[in-house]
Amino acid sequence: MRVSTAPLRFAKGHGTQNDFVILPDPTADLDLTVDLVTVLCDRQRGLGGDGLLRVARAGALVGAGVLDALPDGVAADDWFMDYRNADGSIAEMCGNGVRVFAHYCRATGLVDADEFVVGSRAGARPVTVHSFDASLADVTVAMGPVRLDGAGTVTLAGRDLTGEAVDVGNPHLACVVDGLSARELAALDLSAAPDVDDEQFPRGANVEILTPLVAADGRDGLDYTAALRVYERGVGETRSCGTGLVAGAAAGLHGLGRATGVVGITVPGGAVGVRLTDSEAFLRGPSRLVAHGELIDGFAADDYRVGRG
Amino acid sequence: MRVSTAPLRFAKGHGTQNDFVILPDPTADLDLTVDLVTVLCDRQRGLGGDGLLRVARAGALVGAGVLDALPDGVAADDWFMDYRNADGSIAEMCGNGVRVFAHYCRATGLVDADEFVVGSRAGARPVTVHSFDASLADVTVAMGPVRLDGAGTVTLAGRDLTGEAVDVGNPHLACVVDGLSARELAALDLSAAPDVDDEQFPRGANVEILTPLVAADGRDGLDYTAALRVYERGVGETRSCGTGLVAGAAAGLHGLGRATGVVGITVPGGAVGVRLTDSEAFLRGPSRLVAHGELIDGFAADDYRVGRG
Repeated sequence: MRVSTAPLRFAKGHGTQNDFVILPDPTADLDLTVDLVTVLCDRQRGLGGDGLLRVARAGALVGAGVLDALPDGVAADDWFMDYRNADGSIAEMCGNGVRVFAHYCRATGLVDADEFVVGSRAGARPVTVHSFDASLADVTVAMGPVRLDGAGTVTLAGRDLTGEAVDVGNPHLACVVDGLSARELAALDLSAAPDVDDEQFPRGANVEILTPLVAADGRDGLDYTAALRVYERGVGETRSCGTGLVAGAAAGLHGLGRATGVVGITVPGGAVGVRLTDSEAFLRGPSRLVAHGELIDGFAADDYRVGRG
Repeated sequence: MRVSTAPLRFAKGHGTQNDFVILPDPTADLDLTVDLVTVLCDRQRGLGGDGLLRVARAGALVGAGVLDALPDGVAADDWFMDYRNADGSIAEMCGNGVRVFAHYCRATGLVDADEFVVGSRAGARPVTVHSFDASLADVTVAMGPVRLDGAGTVTLAGRDLTGEAVDVGNPHLACVVDGLSARELAALDLSAAPDVDDEQFPRGANVEILTPLVAADGRDGLDYTAALRVYERGVGETRSCGTGLVAGAAAGLHGLGRATGVVGITVPGGAVGVRLTDSEAFLRGPSRLVAHGELIDGFAADDYRVGRG
């Protein structure tokens, strides 16, 4: 429960335009109800965000009963990204969110090292903050193992596509389209939901469409570059999706007969680098902190009183 | 131009979920470029809003060259709502915005009277703040004259509708649908743009669809109640539209053979009251201030550098 009546402080930030409400709550005093998260993430009624990041000590969240126990590899003193979707539901991980979370911890002085562990429900997420200031950071996040699950087909943007099923903790179908240019990709209409195979993806899947990989010859530390768009299940097209970027890189490299490499990918919200090693994936990209401030008490009330004359 | 390097302060608020970024700038020092407004109103990259309200003295805006001259009825010391659409373009007026603007002026102490004039490009907008605190206000705005321009037809939500063309400074076609219940109205699919008559509406029109007026017998000062939804030209469905509410009330009263009266209207974003007199319309409804804070320098930069490995 919330024990203080001080104004609720917040920050707003985004990672390649995947955007978040950030709530600092070190000792886990806030009662983050579905209603509260929903209003905070509502773009008209609240601050607006694709999701919400509560910044709390992992041990405090266990003490408050938010977590049953410390996840694998997470210490009680680690900062834990208590992630909520805009509808108030809990998500285990968000790759873009971890960058913004790490940036916030570094920029506000909660952490004074460049390498540290961010706790998440999916386990420890080691991060490296390569550079940062109050506004911008360049952060690498260890995204865990990636598994290729074979080919699949889907209809998206009126095209029948073939792709690779990729598991990055959540299910993806990543489709490299021969001959597709970045300009043609940008012009596609992704307003209609793709129809993935129910048998292959009983819980649905995010679908990525990307250009073929182009050799980068080591420029900026990259082996290849590509452009990608993503349709997130249950959400629609988003300007960026961390796990979708990893899935796209894995599918692109697989098509070239490679299991490892570094791919620079441009999405509608910005650009990132994905490094695939024998054991796991790393996502490197920007975090942008936009604003900070205070909520005004009463903000969550609705205004459906009868109009008056 | 901006002469100070102090952080840019903002507030966020909404009127029946028509939402705004509020920038206090009493002496009109900010250079409100299209780019700056666009980023501030961008829901992922910035704070997010249907529009932006700069709060400046009318005389200061003339001095800064933002206004050519003081509009009719506006004094140099009046607070002027310098309204910008989310795309950075200028709009003359916004009925919901004036309530939020007046609330902000009252709640922050810029104004210490309950009745005052808000300046707008459409001229003076007298307001009455019936009650307020830091979060919520109840405000009436004088919306100026309303003109009925005869019948028109439109296809909306798969229905062929007949309505009244109403000019509230901007063009509307307001359609009362016989027998339509509030529940049926809420279930309609308004995702497709209505096709208004190009000859009748050469610049397009906002289209309102509403239930028949039900007698309220003076309850809450109302003669009638109704439920309404609105499709704004060039925008899509919105949760509320100040001039659309006035147009809906005028069409509803006209259908009952009345030119004046008070109608309580529920929209997806809340409820308001519209009073029509022989000379003009008054819109009364809530304003909600949600948050205030500071932008972080650098927020407007984009993140399209090439990803790095």
